[in-house]
Amino acid sequence: MRFTGSSFTRTMSSSFARFNSTSAAAKSPTGVVFMNMGGPSTVKETHDFLFRLFSDGDLIPFGPFQNILAKFIAKRRTPKIEKNYEEIGGGSPIRYWSEFQCKRVCELLDESNPETAPHKPYVAFRYANPLTEDTLQTMLKDGVKRAVAFSQYPQFSYSTSGSSMNELYRQTLKLDPNRTINWSFIDRWPKQKGLVSAFASNINDKISEFPEEDRDMIVILFSAHSLPMDIVNRGDSYPAEVATTVYAIMEKLNFKFPYRLVWQSQVGPKPWLGGQTAKIVGKLEKRDDIKGIILVPVAFTSDHIETLHELDIELVEECENPEKIKRAESLNGNEVFIEGLADLVKGHLQSGELYSNQLELDCKLGGETAKDTFKHPKELFGDHSKK
Amino acid sequence: MRFTGSSFTRTMSSSFARFNSTSAAAKSPTGVVFMNMGGPSTVKETHDFLFRLFSDGDLIPFGPFQNILAKFIAKRRTPKIEKNYEEIGGGSPIRYWSEFQCKRVCELLDESNPETAPHKPYVAFRYANPLTEDTLQTMLKDGVKRAVAFSQYPQFSYSTSGSSMNELYRQTLKLDPNRTINWSFIDRWPKQKGLVSAFASNINDKISEFPEEDRDMIVILFSAHSLPMDIVNRGDSYPAEVATTVYAIMEKLNFKFPYRLVWQSQVGPKPWLGGQTAKIVGKLEKRDDIKGIILVPVAFTSDHIETLHELDIELVEECENPEKIKRAESLNGNEVFIEGLADLVKGHLQSGELYSNQLELDCKLGGETAKDTFKHPKELFGDHSKK
Repeated sequence: MRFTGSSFTRTMSSSFARFNSTSAAAKSPTGVVFMNMGGPSTVKETHDFLFRLFSDGDLIPFGPFQNILAKFIAKRRTPKIEKNYEEIGGGSPIRYWSEFQCKRVCELLDESNPETAPHKPYVAFRYANPLTEDTLQTMLKDGVKRAVAFSQYPQFSYSTSGSSMNELYRQTLKLDPNRTINWSFIDRWPKQKGLVSAFASNINDKISEFPEEDRDMIVILFSAHSLPMDIVNRGDSYPAEVATTVYAIMEKLNFKFPYRLVWQSQVGPKPWLGGQTAKIVGKLEKRDDIKGIILVPVAFTSDHIETLHELDIELVEECENPEKIKRAESLNGNEVFIEGLADLVKGHLQSGELYSNQLELDCKLGGETAKDTFKHPKELFGDHSKK
Repeated sequence: MRFTGSSFTRTMSSSFARFNSTSAAAKSPTGVVFMNMGGPSTVKETHDFLFRLFSDGDLIPFGPFQNILAKFIAKRRTPKIEKNYEEIGGGSPIRYWSEFQCKRVCELLDESNPETAPHKPYVAFRYANPLTEDTLQTMLKDGVKRAVAFSQYPQFSYSTSGSSMNELYRQTLKLDPNRTINWSFIDRWPKQKGLVSAFASNINDKISEFPEEDRDMIVILFSAHSLPMDIVNRGDSYPAEVATTVYAIMEKLNFKFPYRLVWQSQVGPKPWLGGQTAKIVGKLEKRDDIKGIILVPVAFTSDHIETLHELDIELVEECENPEKIKRAESLNGNEVFIEGLADLVKGHLQSGELYSNQLELDCKLGGETAKDTFKHPKELFGDHSKK
């Protein structure tokens, strides 16, 4: 049995009709839109990226001082972050990989799901180029009438996937007020088969790099971006869904190794969800009865500053035994993963789903402080009939 | 495919030998020992229960002041908690249900796994009668030479399952210094098939109590006992394993309803893991677009003060719309659940497993402040050969 985003979704009878009328209309392309926070592709884009990030009240609610604080923090942090991007090769690879993955997904869909072909790939980032507003304008020019917003966070957080969704709504009101594009949303897919298989295979690759006699003393640490406790405490979906991905990967590995879900990248003075990746690694790497630690970036689908700099450079530098630490490859161009994504979109298109059953509850619990956005997902994705 | 505690375990070749020699020896019974925190069966046992609970440094590390603070807090809290136990019928039903479940598990095992018969049921509570020390003495008198310590927490926390394990070790040193009993440990089983099926079925029962037209507007809240953030932050297994149980139940229900994992029973001034059950219920029950809330006690296997009083009395009393709130039955005497437990023990006995792969790591991360206990689980459960 496959468990994908499509297995727990709101559907509506009229969505098939919407879609069919769209596809019949002279083969307007089906847009497949990879949504993510993004990252600066070049060092000089760093400041704007940071400013947009700290301006986002869905991610970091500063209240009435959002704009002032965003300016201040972005300016102060830019030099350090620019240096980090320089050290990983002059920019984030997230745009490259997102475009690569999405293009390949569309190629696969053209073959596997000809009734919705042609499929046209788009990337919409929340804080970096290509921004949602630019992508939306391109899609309108391309005559897209049916589009799938595909969150590239496998696990839903209102602060990440929710933020991208809110931005899509705001830009739609501005740029497509007559709603020529019919949207649906793949909002979470924590147990998607290709995702789980690709991670398991990347972990096995790292295990084989350790000497055979040490393989019984390896610990797998799944490291996900942490969340501030005030977001966790309002009932955000993310921690439980990341745990779901982790358990599914360990099932695939037959629980052959001890493992733990840990959390990285906390910033600022407020409490965040732990155990912290660096602290747990710090405890374990000093032990003689642990010969290897494999770090697995389980909540992102491609490399980014948090893998290439935070894990590969900063964390390893602080270790007494850096030779014990290996990081599993990010998913990037992994074909098993990409085929999984294509399967997921195909299932989504065929089911007529608009978004998952969870999304309304996410909005009820996470959307209390959200600004300039809808009250209900149906305002963006259409209403669904009762099941 | 079944996922049980037995699917991710340390095994050792010699454990079969240990077991076989035991079973060959004139049919000494196989002890099946249900371990749990327990609860006072009568109101007058409340003080001693609370004193033992607050004396447990694995659960609540007070450092050098443990004993003094335990005395103080237990004395201060006893009247209120006594009143709570009076309100739920004069005591906790946890002993009744544990004895019921364990007896039935042993009957099933006698049929399904005759090679380890007879199976003899025992209950060992951490803070209430029957205490671990009393049960251990009974087992020694009964001539038990092979026993399974079976944690009745489906999800492992060092502060609960770990505490029971540590107490078993301490009492073994005192009462069975020559180690006449060979122990193994079922330390976690978050996706055990019977557990998941029984919860799903209990949820369906509650859903059918709502009018048909409201069933599309029901939210399922899985409520687990919370943990202090300092335990979460040291890398405790519990939050991720509870999330695993929740997701498995929702898979069984085909994700037909929105749901959330929430956390109850926090006490004291320190930060605990949220979203808090009462706060999330408080937000949702006031909404017109939510017609029903089903509370599911997902981390306990029988009724206890946290279901019968905290959820059924306190939480409902605080609601504006108590008619919207229903609690799914606890597992108690559920036959599907009990058959699942018997399957789990059978698989464990047949596999020769001593404990799961996770347990060593739990001890490394959680055992730093533990007192008078082993450095390695092999000191209680035997060594395992390399796989």
